[in-house]
Amino acid sequence: MTEAHQAEQGGHLLSGLVAATFTPMKRDGALDLARVPAVCDFVLGQGVSGLFLCGSTGESPSLTVDERMAVSDAYIEACGGRVPVVVHVGHNSLTDARALAAHAERAGADAIAIVPPSYFSIGSIDGLVSCIQDIAEAAPDMPLYYYHIPRLTGVGLRMVDLLERADEVLPSFAGLKFSSFELDDLLCCIRHGGGRYNVLFGSDEMLLAGLSMGAAGAVGSTFNFMGPYYRRVIDALAAGDLQKAQDEQLVATQRVHQILVHGGHNAIKAAMAVMGEDCGPPRLPWKALSAEALVAMREELLDEG
Amino acid sequence: MTEAHQAEQGGHLLSGLVAATFTPMKRDGALDLARVPAVCDFVLGQGVSGLFLCGSTGESPSLTVDERMAVSDAYIEACGGRVPVVVHVGHNSLTDARALAAHAERAGADAIAIVPPSYFSIGSIDGLVSCIQDIAEAAPDMPLYYYHIPRLTGVGLRMVDLLERADEVLPSFAGLKFSSFELDDLLCCIRHGGGRYNVLFGSDEMLLAGLSMGAAGAVGSTFNFMGPYYRRVIDALAAGDLQKAQDEQLVATQRVHQILVHGGHNAIKAAMAVMGEDCGPPRLPWKALSAEALVAMREELLDEG
Amino acid sequence: MTEAHQAEQGGHLLSGLVAATFTPMKRDGALDLARVPAVCDFVLGQGVSGLFLCGSTGESPSLTVDERMAVSDAYIEACGGRVPVVVHVGHNSLTDARALAAHAERAGADAIAIVPPSYFSIGSIDGLVSCIQDIAEAAPDMPLYYYHIPRLTGVGLRMVDLLERADEVLPSFAGLKFSSFELDDLLCCIRHGGGRYNVLFGSDEMLLAGLSMGAAGAVGSTFNFMGPYYRRVIDALAAGDLQKAQDEQLVATQRVHQILVHGGHNAIKAAMAVMGEDCGPPRLPWKALSAEALVAMREELLDEG
Amino acid sequence: MTEAHQAEQGGHLLSGLVAATFTPMKRDGALDLARVPAVCDFVLGQGVSGLFLCGSTGESPSLTVDERMAVSDAYIEACGGRVPVVVHVGHNSLTDARALAAHAERAGADAIAIVPPSYFSIGSIDGLVSCIQDIAEAAPDMPLYYYHIPRLTGVGLRMVDLLERADEVLPSFAGLKFSSFELDDLLCCIRHGGGRYNVLFGSDEMLLAGLSMGAAGAVGSTFNFMGPYYRRVIDALAAGDLQKAQDEQLVATQRVHQILVHGGHNAIKAAMAVMGEDCGPPRLPWKALSAEALVAMREELLDEG
Repeated sequence: MTEAHQAEQGGHLLSGLVAATFTPMKRDGALDLARVPAVCDFVLGQGVSGLFLCGSTGESPSLTVDERMAVSDAYIEACGGRVPVVVHVGHNSLTDARALAAHAERAGADAIAIVPPSYFSIGSIDGLVSCIQDIAEAAPDMPLYYYHIPRLTGVGLRMVDLLERADEVLPSFAGLKFSSFELDDLLCCIRHGGGRYNVLFGSDEMLLAGLSMGAAGAVGSTFNFMGPYYRRVIDALAAGDLQKAQDEQLVATQRVHQILVHGGHNAIKAAMAVMGEDCGPPRLPWKALSAEALVAMREELLDEG
Repeated sequence: MTEAHQAEQGGHLLSGLVAATFTPMKRDGALDLARVPAVCDFVLGQGVSGLFLCGSTGESPSLTVDERMAVSDAYIEACGGRVPVVVHVGHNSLTDARALAAHAERAGADAIAIVPPSYFSIGSIDGLVSCIQDIAEAAPDMPLYYYHIPRLTGVGLRMVDLLERADEVLPSFAGLKFSSFELDDLLCCIRHGGGRYNVLFGSDEMLLAGLSMGAAGAVGSTFNFMGPYYRRVIDALAAGDLQKAQDEQLVATQRVHQILVHGGHNAIKAAMAVMGEDCGPPRLPWKALSAEALVAMREELLDEG
Repeated sequence: MTEAHQAEQGGHLLSGLVAATFTPMKRDGALDLARVPAVCDFVLGQGVSGLFLCGSTGESPSLTVDERMAVSDAYIEACGGRVPVVVHVGHNSLTDARALAAHAERAGADAIAIVPPSYFSIGSIDGLVSCIQDIAEAAPDMPLYYYHIPRLTGVGLRMVDLLERADEVLPSFAGLKFSSFELDDLLCCIRHGGGRYNVLFGSDEMLLAGLSMGAAGAVGSTFNFMGPYYRRVIDALAAGDLQKAQDEQLVATQRVHQILVHGGHNAIKAAMAVMGEDCGPPRLPWKALSAEALVAMREELLDEG
Repeated sequence: MTEAHQAEQGGHLLSGLVAATFTPMKRDGALDLARVPAVCDFVLGQGVSGLFLCGSTGESPSLTVDERMAVSDAYIEACGGRVPVVVHVGHNSLTDARALAAHAERAGADAIAIVPPSYFSIGSIDGLVSCIQDIAEAAPDMPLYYYHIPRLTGVGLRMVDLLERADEVLPSFAGLKFSSFELDDLLCCIRHGGGRYNVLFGSDEMLLAGLSMGAAGAVGSTFNFMGPYYRRVIDALAAGDLQKAQDEQLVATQRVHQILVHGGHNAIKAAMAVMGEDCGPPRLPWKALSAEALVAMREELLDEG
């Protein structure tokens, strides 16, 4: 499947909207993998062209290694090759990250992605490259995406500097999920080496800005249930109608802001229940929204939807 | 002049490229106002459609109040009404800010702009509105722009929330210089009240991203000497050629990164000497570039220019 | 006076409690210098052994240069040489800082103190030394204290590194007001060069910790009206009764926390009115406490006082 | 053993110096548990009165759950009840943290300690209490210590507020490892509820400051190989000789600074090899010191040692 996908996307694995999937959970916090097929079908019905499993949206830091593997297996099976699947394998413990990477390969993922360790912060490109190499060696044939999200990892290095090193020493390096707001660095990464790497933008609320810099696509949490909103942004831009693309982005952005009034990931997971398929509550340290907040959110979102 | 300018720009005072001007200084740090006419002509020759005086680029925090007034007077006279002129009057001391605002009005500026006090940080929209009101009252007929630059002021509030309050209590509020990277907030501000406010973007290196969100124009330091680079971005976007706009933005961005390898404002002021008109060294706390850095920069910038 | 004071304090100008004085203001924000003599007498009655004028507590960033000079003159006259007086002269504009330094000398201050420019941040000891030199040259015979408060200035450099450079190039360097929480650096500074510099601690709530590291004294805002609380800490420690010193520090700390529930500097200035002499409201960007908060604070503070 | 220890320490489990132990590793990063007995004996020979296993110093975030259990088992066996042992069980995944807590109980630990999840940050006492409860329920009979280290976890809440909630809802809550620099909060925690909780300080370089506030003891990494340095601080303070305590603290602090010139945890682990027992290199994301740095450190440390 990988080859077919790559062929239609100009050599890069991913383009368009890639959904950072939720991990379905029961009221007691246990995994609820029985829901994955329905969730997966719903998400694919949103017009997404890829899945990003066990990222921040999938609450991977709150799962055990075994749980992460089980979630990946469930989504990969449910997806059935309809779109490419990336499995996030980053972990504070690189030993665990390596195990997750090897599992992702065995499980039939199309690529892996990593956030770097963040409890101990990384302060240099050299240190970052060493960590990426360590994981890449555990699944050397898997395309590897680096997930750049400085506000969660504290790693604020310039990504174009990473790409320069990747050219030399990271043969499986495939691209970036770019969730920083430094769009000048984004542009430089997109154009590095003649567009050698597959650069996905990672901020739903400002998708249009990332696309305007030339991003091949984007990875996001609200794509799970607001796919059509973002498709309209992409289509308008492709049609050369920037004004309409702004109109559509504004609708999406305001909807996301409406959700985020109620919290962070916990609010987005609640919005998935309202606008899409119920994936249950989040695990601690996220707290489920209060009943009042849920009622308010339901009214706000269904009112206009 | 104001009316004529506004008429041609759809009701808003500013559009296109607004240069945040340098303050010319002698080797000993004294003002060198005799250079202002030549500098002003050079900058206007870059195709800019407005001047932003005594901002961060003008080193206003490092000037006395009297010096700021003298610099404003010199530029306003040199400009001679060819383009609109905004005078930045923000100061830790609001008493000083008020004096600067009143002077700007007397001196014939078209608008004032402010950063908020930052030594004591402001944590609420309420606090911010009080400060803006205090300054606005000293020049109630002058359009007022708020200069949003969280990384320097520590004020990370959402600007669309400020605009909502401005609708009610700040009659002279004209718009924003938006130098935050949160472009979802930028989009919301641009569209607030049907485009009621004049929103300028403030990051040269990612100008295209701001324009793609609908910014009316931009205020920047490198517009002083790289105007044509950015004009090509604007023109390509206006012609509907996004790919070419990205090409041109990349050229500008890489040039700026080349400069910033050598420092911050001190490197940009040095680049002005290389690529434009010499405005002398910066004042402390900025240190002038070393002779070696200057030689290297000259070679890098003139090599390709 | 300076000589006499120094003699009794082992060669250093300052020891014990140094009050960072308030700037009295009228309801409309104007200076209320007529109150200075009474305020000064009240503060000296708290058992303080020095005054620190126009610091953060004195709202110097919110004053004009002329106002700062007037406040200094008023306090120096009111003090009449009863204790040493330090005038803070730091300013974003070093030109203004130099003028303030020269004025402080003429006005009869015993020393000057500076925070560095903070709008443009300083990232190296070299840059910091250049700024200090620039100011020192304007009042070369005045002992100069560097005011280290990283959370307000963003300058987080290690102070013992500054002292090493001061040995070589800053002949008038006298010591530090140390308001960082890195007490290992404090200890190193106190002992640097055999105790060559006069190191004052700057966090009232943890005074005992600073004293335990050997600080000669402390500069603080709540010393204006809670002097006896802190004198009891100092006396207990001097008497070798660490347990009692902790008891007394706890009382002071809890009282300060009680005040800070209501705000920051605005709450402390309100507490001065309740427990000492009324110095009026703060200037923007600080907002005066609400009437409700003032009533609550009065009850809390007078209840136990 | 617990009872005996508690009896001699006034009801609290821990006092004096508690070593945050290293995890011995081979050159390839694998655990080297065969070294644990010798390391443990060496550390106990430093005069420490407790062990804190698998904390930051033990590189627990870089270990798998199974490895953490194996390291705990090895140290608990090697220690043989000579001093109390605390096992750190914090993890981004609370499911993993619960498993680690249950294991620590089975393994015979005297207490558990936790850092909160940090990838997703915690912004309220409520959220923090929920996380602590979740872990406590997995080992309800084990005394639980909260490890407060804001610069690594991003959780900057006031600890005395946590203790107030602990009184009500966390029956197994035993105390704090306090590695924040806000020593006013430390004092309040020590005195909260009449000294109800066991509060250990967590910054070796400023141990004396923590002790002066009344901390029962301290947990630290350099206690593994510099125990006598810190014992001399404690003894001098106990003897009422504050001046000598400062002298001794200065020696320790300067030694630690000498080490930290070369890095962070990687430098401290290298110093353990030089001054104590070799525990091998750190795991990524820490990089082993270069050969040159190791030679330099050896010379510096052995020169004076």
